[in-house]
Amino acid sequence: MDRFEALRLLGSVSFGRVVFTQRALPAIRPVNHIVDGEDIVIRTHEGAALVSYAQDAGDPGVVVAYEADAIDPQTHLGWSVVVTGYARMVTDPEDLARYQAALRPWVDRTMDFTVRIHPEEITAVHLVPYDE
Amino acid sequence: MDRFEALRLLGSVSFGRVVFTQRALPAIRPVNHIVDGEDIVIRTHEGAALVSYAQDAGDPGVVVAYEADAIDPQTHLGWSVVVTGYARMVTDPEDLARYQAALRPWVDRTMDFTVRIHPEEITAVHLVPYDE
Repeated sequence: MDRFEALRLLGSVSFGRVVFTQRALPAIRPVNHIVDGEDIVIRTHEGAALVSYAQDAGDPGVVVAYEADAIDPQTHLGWSVVVTGYARMVTDPEDLARYQAALRPWVDRTMDFTVRIHPEEITAVHLVPYDE
Repeated sequence: MDRFEALRLLGSVSFGRVVFTQRALPAIRPVNHIVDGEDIVIRTHEGAALVSYAQDAGDPGVVVAYEADAIDPQTHLGWSVVVTGYARMVTDPEDLARYQAALRPWVDRTMDFTVRIHPEEITAVHLVPYDE
């Protein structure tokens, strides 16, 4: 599966899981996403952990992983796409307005941060039947 | 939601996503699981990254996160449970036989490692409707 196909699959679903490091421990949270070009855009209240080191203009951001999948609960067939890349806060007012309109809030909390993840690496697996 | 209820939810689905650190980067892979008492047991071919530091008897293991959820793709309602804890390779022959019978292979690769995750922390969220 190529990069284009993997991003197309990612864009075909509306949520996934962002993976980051919080107080030196692995952390994961389900969030909504949209795919904008090659970037994944999410809104989250976990912004502090995600982007606290990514707010200076010269800072490339924090490395995170983002996973989305569509897996049949019975057959376990489907696909999983994992993106690894730099997460940065979105600060441009026009981008913010567009993303916030597209990403409706989900969990009943203030969604403080809009974060853009630029993929450095994309891996995708098709989960296919396996004969033991 | 208490610990017992969170583990019950986790046990009500058969797969989730293990989150770990691989070459200093956040990594995530979908895997099958079973809940055995308070522990989550998975089979994976990523064992090298997960447990390479957890093979000595005196070693507590590697800290990983494990997430499972049941989220409606349309409404986005459902739940997500995240476990953080130590991952250790299962080496006891009886345990191995039992787990390998219960966890059927999934992805078409050799599943080399059976790993037990003992929860240190369990967090659960119910994803409920949100009025903007």
